[in-house]
Amino acid sequence: GLVHIKNPYLDSMEEDVLYHLDLGTKTHNLPAMFGDIKFVCVGGSPNRMRAFAQFMHKELGLMGDGEDLADICAGTDRYAMYRAGPVLSISHGMGIPSISIMLHELIKLLHHAKCRDVTIIRIGTSGGLGIEAGSVVITDMAVDSSFKPRFEQVVLDDVVVRSTELDKDLAEELLACSKEIPDFRTLIGHTMCTYDFYEGQGRLDGALCSFSSEKKLEYLKRAYDAGVRNIEMESTAFAALCGLCGLKGESSCSHL
Amino acid sequence: GLVHIKNPYLDSMEEDVLYHLDLGTKTHNLPAMFGDIKFVCVGGSPNRMRAFAQFMHKELGLMGDGEDLADICAGTDRYAMYRAGPVLSISHGMGIPSISIMLHELIKLLHHAKCRDVTIIRIGTSGGLGIEAGSVVITDMAVDSSFKPRFEQVVLDDVVVRSTELDKDLAEELLACSKEIPDFRTLIGHTMCTYDFYEGQGRLDGALCSFSSEKKLEYLKRAYDAGVRNIEMESTAFAALCGLCGLKGESSCSHL
Repeated sequence: GLVHIKNPYLDSMEEDVLYHLDLGTKTHNLPAMFGDIKFVCVGGSPNRMRAFAQFMHKELGLMGDGEDLADICAGTDRYAMYRAGPVLSISHGMGIPSISIMLHELIKLLHHAKCRDVTIIRIGTSGGLGIEAGSVVITDMAVDSSFKPRFEQVVLDDVVVRSTELDKDLAEELLACSKEIPDFRTLIGHTMCTYDFYEGQGRLDGALCSFSSEKKLEYLKRAYDAGVRNIEMESTAFAALCGLCGLKGESSCSHL
Repeated sequence: GLVHIKNPYLDSMEEDVLYHLDLGTKTHNLPAMFGDIKFVCVGGSPNRMRAFAQFMHKELGLMGDGEDLADICAGTDRYAMYRAGPVLSISHGMGIPSISIMLHELIKLLHHAKCRDVTIIRIGTSGGLGIEAGSVVITDMAVDSSFKPRFEQVVLDDVVVRSTELDKDLAEELLACSKEIPDFRTLIGHTMCTYDFYEGQGRLDGALCSFSSEKKLEYLKRAYDAGVRNIEMESTAFAALCGLCGLKGESSCSHL
């Protein structure tokens, strides 16, 4: 149940500085701070991830009102991190490069802290495709802009293709949980991940727009027919990194 | 000297909501708020862009001590924006997708505000290549991980290749300014832009590392031989978007 670090250099390093989290193996006792973490929830906005930690604090019936949770990464403004009992809540900014930096350092944090059986869930926002506003899409597969379940990672100047499958049992478990809440529209579907919000997602209101409304609708229809139910900007990198490092991962985004 | 919006739909829209900046054409008087802006400086970190606005406030001899500059985008935590006289200072987060969203909305803001002759400069951090720590690299050309001066933009599911040339006169002008300051190491060179901080930039301390130290050095040497003097994660998208929209743009990053 440990996290799999796939870096032969890491354990021989004298110190590992998790630079963008403002944490490190020499400056912090990571096993004491994080060893009992079982769930990590990630989302784009720092304010929303603080609100989520406060919500979890109340749901778990922890001591105090949870209003004054401290940002564990207060020494940097790259990301924000809060904890409520066994739940860590972290922001990742917008887009694949931003979430990748955070995930590399988070995965190393969980490794140094000797965490076991950690489940990680992305709970960000997304645009829905042919679904009601307010619906939550639980991702069974993250796909790229060609609707393929793959993530192309540039390693030095080679392109490596990685799988973007997520944990199917966890998706079913989350769907079952949602059924217990009345009027909570939840579905399982593919999530499309793009590198751009405007031209990449067919928006007609960016600074640049070179396609017609018809071409946009034709593309989105093809995406829908391929099983895509929502569009966001992090899921393929999230699925690829969590999968490779043995983290049970799931992405469930609300369509705002 | 006006900004070129290349979107035929924009001017027929009843309202343009710059969602990630928490600004809009109906909710804000954009010409009154921004019409006299002449310089826009952008960088990753919100705290650093506030500090830069405070610094500009003092340098320009504006009234007050500049310590209480208000975040113009306070209603959102996606980006932070400050102004000091004719200078706007905006954060863009980390990576191409994050800076792209901000630039689309910034370019529309400058268009709606009818700004003229605006110069935009990215003043972020970067990793240096064969240069002294603390040096500032003024980018003559942003290149991708194959050292080519191009940005591949996915538009719906087509890949469009865009030029990443920056304003050469502005680069020379910035270099001349730096000469006036003693002991300020500045040089002009190519800037390489990657999608990833760890595997993409040859770091041996990520959660994943599949290459040897020799392979890393060989790659970085090839980059140096191709004229690359620093590596960061936004310059190709910055150069491509600014170029297409007629903004005089430059990127000058300090090597930390």
